[in-house]
Amino acid sequence: MATEIESIVINMAKVAKQASIKIAKCSTKKKNEVLLNIANKLLQNKEEIKQENQKDILFAKEKGLSSAMIERLTIKEATIYSMSQGLHDVVKLEDPVGAISKTWRRPNGLEVSRMRIPIGVIGIIYESRPNVTIDSAGLCLKAGNSVILRGGSEALNSNQILSKIISDALSEADLPKEIVQVVPIRDREAVEILLCQEESIDLIIPRGGEGLIRFVVENSKIPVLKHYKGVCHVFVDDSANLNMAEEICFNAKVQRPGVCNAMETMLVHSSVASNFLTKMGDKFRKAGVEIRGCKRTCEILSYAKPAVEEDWPAEYLDLILAVKIVDDMDGALSHISKYSSNHTESIVTSNYDKARRFLREVDSSVVLVNASTRFNDGGELGLGAEIGISTSKLHAFGPMGLEELTTTKFIVFGDGQIRT
Amino acid sequence: MATEIESIVINMAKVAKQASIKIAKCSTKKKNEVLLNIANKLLQNKEEIKQENQKDILFAKEKGLSSAMIERLTIKEATIYSMSQGLHDVVKLEDPVGAISKTWRRPNGLEVSRMRIPIGVIGIIYESRPNVTIDSAGLCLKAGNSVILRGGSEALNSNQILSKIISDALSEADLPKEIVQVVPIRDREAVEILLCQEESIDLIIPRGGEGLIRFVVENSKIPVLKHYKGVCHVFVDDSANLNMAEEICFNAKVQRPGVCNAMETMLVHSSVASNFLTKMGDKFRKAGVEIRGCKRTCEILSYAKPAVEEDWPAEYLDLILAVKIVDDMDGALSHISKYSSNHTESIVTSNYDKARRFLREVDSSVVLVNASTRFNDGGELGLGAEIGISTSKLHAFGPMGLEELTTTKFIVFGDGQIRT
Repeated sequence: MATEIESIVINMAKVAKQASIKIAKCSTKKKNEVLLNIANKLLQNKEEIKQENQKDILFAKEKGLSSAMIERLTIKEATIYSMSQGLHDVVKLEDPVGAISKTWRRPNGLEVSRMRIPIGVIGIIYESRPNVTIDSAGLCLKAGNSVILRGGSEALNSNQILSKIISDALSEADLPKEIVQVVPIRDREAVEILLCQEESIDLIIPRGGEGLIRFVVENSKIPVLKHYKGVCHVFVDDSANLNMAEEICFNAKVQRPGVCNAMETMLVHSSVASNFLTKMGDKFRKAGVEIRGCKRTCEILSYAKPAVEEDWPAEYLDLILAVKIVDDMDGALSHISKYSSNHTESIVTSNYDKARRFLREVDSSVVLVNASTRFNDGGELGLGAEIGISTSKLHAFGPMGLEELTTTKFIVFGDGQIRT
Repeated sequence: MATEIESIVINMAKVAKQASIKIAKCSTKKKNEVLLNIANKLLQNKEEIKQENQKDILFAKEKGLSSAMIERLTIKEATIYSMSQGLHDVVKLEDPVGAISKTWRRPNGLEVSRMRIPIGVIGIIYESRPNVTIDSAGLCLKAGNSVILRGGSEALNSNQILSKIISDALSEADLPKEIVQVVPIRDREAVEILLCQEESIDLIIPRGGEGLIRFVVENSKIPVLKHYKGVCHVFVDDSANLNMAEEICFNAKVQRPGVCNAMETMLVHSSVASNFLTKMGDKFRKAGVEIRGCKRTCEILSYAKPAVEEDWPAEYLDLILAVKIVDDMDGALSHISKYSSNHTESIVTSNYDKARRFLREVDSSVVLVNASTRFNDGGELGLGAEIGISTSKLHAFGPMGLEELTTTKFIVFGDGQIRT
């Protein structure tokens, strides 16, 4: 006998699959109208949204959640405007569905094309920030997919009011409201059941901390697109413009240290180490960055703490930086190959050959020359918006935009061809 | 304590990962030289290959395997020439690695490109046919990947001699022989362990019957690209050129009934059913095709057996055909939507709007107008060669060629850009 939670979740997956046929066929115009209607309704219903969010906040305070958690949970007036604006931005993005990416002709006269199509049903599993509900729903809907959203249990009231607004907009457009559904269950069992609906759900995208992501990967029978962490490196080569290197490294570490594309380890060519590190270290120190250095780094910077083995694969997400001096390009590449999380690496150099070699040989989703690691972001790279970053190589590697929420099928125009 | 089998398999996965760094960086010229060297060595060592194959055949006969199984296992002189020629064909294919698929410029001057890169380590799990060893190794190697091959246990001697030939060619080119490895263990435990090496292996491709594929999917922690079965439909519309429809349906069913892209169900528009089925049925009957028809079909064809519910989702892989009369396009589309395996569907029509609608709405990896379903094949569609067909939508949907054995990373050219 199925439990009540099982029945609810299994049914959600089934109706999502049915609804996916409708949204897959929907015209760009109609999808955009729905998105704009949601954007308007968010503003019209902002008091109700804030009321429901207050319930979550009160409950979170009772449960004694940290102020950082409560901050993430809170929907301010500005949050609502920003969610609404986000949907306007998605409306402006080109619809990937139906695009023909390539066409070729076979010797027998068959014309073969690859046509972009939606993936089907996507499950998004995320933590407390409720704006993810609107962002994810908007992107999945524009790419012609049904979506099942499972946010943090502490944000359930907020997510349900947002879901109701989306449902209303879908219904007004004569589309099934099951195109976007929020799991109405706080129990974690709901997630485990969701991850087993491989007959109905085509893709799972977890968005959150490493713990959540590992839980999803371990329990999912459905393909998962994810990254665990970002241990991003900048290599300052001996031919680097050191002023540029300073600006890039400072930006990569300090501008927003708590995100996955922030630099965690800085590699410095030994020829410029003394010169570069003295000035750079000072700048970091003034910004409150703790430096954990290799032996040679500590000889140059008296205030650096000695790094231990655990520092090299660490994702600090904080004002802490591991620093290592390497003797050449090979040293930098082998350190990166050993410790990188395949997320983002950058070289600062003015040497053409080294730039080319770094771009080719570093096995990360985004590899940069003379630019900050902070640019690994769908918006910054020009994808318009992103639903996450993948460091696994199947289907998508790097920031995932609308196109990564689709796949391609082959379409073939014939005139009676048969195989001989 | 790891068992001996565990130690062997885990070590194979680790060394494959290390070797993948070398083959990923290898030039096209060198990869082609290795492939040509393998092609030559196959011919030079054909007596030895046949001797080793004889051991497998004797063992298979002792075990009482069916003559069909022994036929699949047998390496004839022609098989060796065909394996060798297959490698020459792979040499001629364009190397996907390093190709830049797109480049764009951001407002801040960053130039962003997507560059094709190898996936890393690929595991191929297949059944008795030993030529798969050479085909798969050739394609994976050309796409810059390491590969671990696990063929049928009854083909182990054959696969090991083929593997030795590949190793020799790799060594002669100063490349690590661990780029291509054959699992030297007959025990199925080896497969189970292989499927858990998610730290080292990036992708699993099973090639074989539905039982093997389900076993792999259920036991794998690594992403799997697969299709379970092909329940392919042809819809003969009322506007079809009936002579063309006859040729296409006959080809789709009879030319090679035992393969996944053969037609299993024929849908016929009611307006032309009587006319079309009378002639078509006769042609099928002469070719020994058993027809299992819906009620209306049985009224037209007295010799048709009544179809039961199990016939609609059936993959016969034999001279058996399910036939259903539908009243219109909607009837055909809803039957396909309910029973298709998302593999291959074709419409025969001379109506422009219906052709367009069928191509857009049918959710299968290959959708054709006025052509046989038998064209769902990497070679026939112009991919050059194929390593399998995927009916799951992530990463690849349809026949998978060299490009599907790669992924893309973002490369970014900057001039000191930082994020503000």
